[in-house]
Amino acid sequence: METTEASNTFGGNLLVAQSGGPTAVINSSVAGVIQEAGRHEDIEEIYGGLNGIYGILNEELIDINEEKAKSIEALKHTPAAALGTCRYKINFKTDPDQAAKDMDRLFEVFEAHNIRFFFYAGGNDSQDTSHKIHEEAIKRGYALRVIGVPKTIDNDLPHTDHCPGYGSVVKYNAATVMEVGADVGSMATDDGSCCIVEVMGRAAGWIAAGTVAAKREEDDAPHIILLPEIRLNEETFLAKVKETVDRIGYCVVVAGEGVKNAAGEEIGADKTRLDAFGHPVLSGAADALKDLVQAKLNLKTRTVKLGYAQRAAAHYASAIDSAEAHACGVAAVKAAMEGKSGMMVKLVRLQNEPYQWGTALQPLEDIANVEHFIPRAWITPDGMMPNENFIKYVAPLIQGENPVPTEGGLPVFAKLEKVKVEKKLAERTL
Amino acid sequence: METTEASNTFGGNLLVAQSGGPTAVINSSVAGVIQEAGRHEDIEEIYGGLNGIYGILNEELIDINEEKAKSIEALKHTPAAALGTCRYKINFKTDPDQAAKDMDRLFEVFEAHNIRFFFYAGGNDSQDTSHKIHEEAIKRGYALRVIGVPKTIDNDLPHTDHCPGYGSVVKYNAATVMEVGADVGSMATDDGSCCIVEVMGRAAGWIAAGTVAAKREEDDAPHIILLPEIRLNEETFLAKVKETVDRIGYCVVVAGEGVKNAAGEEIGADKTRLDAFGHPVLSGAADALKDLVQAKLNLKTRTVKLGYAQRAAAHYASAIDSAEAHACGVAAVKAAMEGKSGMMVKLVRLQNEPYQWGTALQPLEDIANVEHFIPRAWITPDGMMPNENFIKYVAPLIQGENPVPTEGGLPVFAKLEKVKVEKKLAERTL
Repeated sequence: METTEASNTFGGNLLVAQSGGPTAVINSSVAGVIQEAGRHEDIEEIYGGLNGIYGILNEELIDINEEKAKSIEALKHTPAAALGTCRYKINFKTDPDQAAKDMDRLFEVFEAHNIRFFFYAGGNDSQDTSHKIHEEAIKRGYALRVIGVPKTIDNDLPHTDHCPGYGSVVKYNAATVMEVGADVGSMATDDGSCCIVEVMGRAAGWIAAGTVAAKREEDDAPHIILLPEIRLNEETFLAKVKETVDRIGYCVVVAGEGVKNAAGEEIGADKTRLDAFGHPVLSGAADALKDLVQAKLNLKTRTVKLGYAQRAAAHYASAIDSAEAHACGVAAVKAAMEGKSGMMVKLVRLQNEPYQWGTALQPLEDIANVEHFIPRAWITPDGMMPNENFIKYVAPLIQGENPVPTEGGLPVFAKLEKVKVEKKLAERTL
Repeated sequence: METTEASNTFGGNLLVAQSGGPTAVINSSVAGVIQEAGRHEDIEEIYGGLNGIYGILNEELIDINEEKAKSIEALKHTPAAALGTCRYKINFKTDPDQAAKDMDRLFEVFEAHNIRFFFYAGGNDSQDTSHKIHEEAIKRGYALRVIGVPKTIDNDLPHTDHCPGYGSVVKYNAATVMEVGADVGSMATDDGSCCIVEVMGRAAGWIAAGTVAAKREEDDAPHIILLPEIRLNEETFLAKVKETVDRIGYCVVVAGEGVKNAAGEEIGADKTRLDAFGHPVLSGAADALKDLVQAKLNLKTRTVKLGYAQRAAAHYASAIDSAEAHACGVAAVKAAMEGKSGMMVKLVRLQNEPYQWGTALQPLEDIANVEHFIPRAWITPDGMMPNENFIKYVAPLIQGENPVPTEGGLPVFAKLEKVKVEKKLAERTL
């Protein structure tokens, strides 16, 4: 799948863009791409695509060389997607006509701006998009090097040991569970109480499982972790809540948002609730579990729903995660300069204690549309807690603090100037 | 209201306890009490009451002198209530018989353990309890010095410039709103999106208002702040959401959990929703607003409900808040040693820029059961944003980071040994 040109005869402009839900460290990957690109003379201009493919189709490019070097450096601790992101896909399955039209337009944009290096940071869908662009370039005979940069808090990409973005969401969520556990535990007096913390993760439970890191001692929170991979056995779950409250006075439950009932349906997607306007509403996993605990155990239950806060929590990001995200960006550029294309950078665990890691490449075709789940052997028999195997896996990923400067007591994040590159094409027609 | 004994003829044991919902810095106040008490020879034993009045009535006392000095020091960055807390009240209004019985029992416990100094850290209800205990001691001729230590994230105590615990919840919530704002903003492409962050504050909107600190530039999040003090005008609210999304592509709304509709009812307390068991459920403010925005503006809307996470977030507490909380504990002991009783320590703002503060005393009878709201003159005419007056007030309170040591990438908090003081009384009878 590699292009065949020798790297010394190849040059042009670089385009980097971001896709899908942001993470606390996806900007660190972009910084890696930009900082490494600056070291290579064969790369002429460095452009950023605004809002991923969606913006690129509209020829929305910015000139990264207009940005201050310190702004690029500050991307290492800046959450969200500094270049903007999108959920837009070039989807040959659901709408082949639109997809073909999009592909034509994309290569018009690439050609108009002499884009010869394309780096797309994202999850499953985005790696699929990169793969399609890579194949299309070969088909068209357009000289282009495409390297995917992994990103996802969900940690559900195959072949890579883990995904940049995952360590930071786990670090923040685990710290939050420690703090909430201390709070609920100190309130547990006469009536005992239960707190359910809902975290992201629709299909795979890596994020929920990661909060096990908060557990230094047997009785520490979380006391139960519910994963989307394991169907909820209500009886066993309620018995464990009750046993925990009877023993230590309280119970902290972490639930992945995609937790499923015995029938395999998401418990949070139950639509029997109607809102004030008569529309069915999703209760969400935590509220559904709260209803259950309150109804069956008559136990005061509170919920915490971290939502976007967890994936944007740069103020408590993992230093190792940010460093790995940056290294993925650097490795992507190096790979392209070596003539590679159609690859995704992956993280490789070289050694666990002390933790050593590196980057390598995996063909994009191996990545696209494959989801990676927690092995059953990493979960206790009752399905409600990750075991030692998982703990060994996750522990190194949350190490170290990634310092964020403050002003007036609050974080200071990078703000890009976003100087637009002059458009050369007519407006996109839909 | 002061006792009349000269301090050099007065001595005995000290009891410190915590009450009500914890904060990120209530333990810092306890550290202040303990560390200052250690400097006074007239204070013999230092005891902690487990779970506030609730535990004290059960004679659940621990010997603080059995704790390591470094554990006491670590209380300065430890969230929740290290001594445990309770919501139990000695309530002469609702149950005078039980209250009279409780008071008898309390003084039995005090007498059995020669408690001569009592420090109770808490909010409104707890200051009321302290006041009643002070009056009762006088009535009984029992030599006791009672000083209240202020605590509440809600910032609703009168007479004090602000409450320990408030600065930290604002710092964490404002940082979260900055991060969520960056995230939502970077996702806003073709369809625009709205995110509603629900924060604590049932009656007073100090916590919600505090997130205005996240706003460095006009278009920064939060774009709308809804306070319990101002009844929601749905039309004006929806118009502002729409105008914001039309202008910048997204809108971040912060809502205090106690936001009220035009009829003065909490919008989150609407019980027309039924859970899967047919029980009415509270939607909560954020979900009620989400229903409204989605129904009326057809705008994709997400919610974040920080719940207990916000008041326990020691990992991003305010250094000034922790220092002030500690100083309140110190000042309480100093006041008692000077012969004072029936007082609450309050915080006084001496100067705004640079911020200078001190402590003073206020009679407990002035504090109990009075709630302190945001002045209308500190809110914009449309009622949806605090103005310059509020910003000047809140800015100093979130300054500085309160460092928390980590182990394995996660915070290390104090764990007390909690060596129990031998009981001297028969079990409490109810």
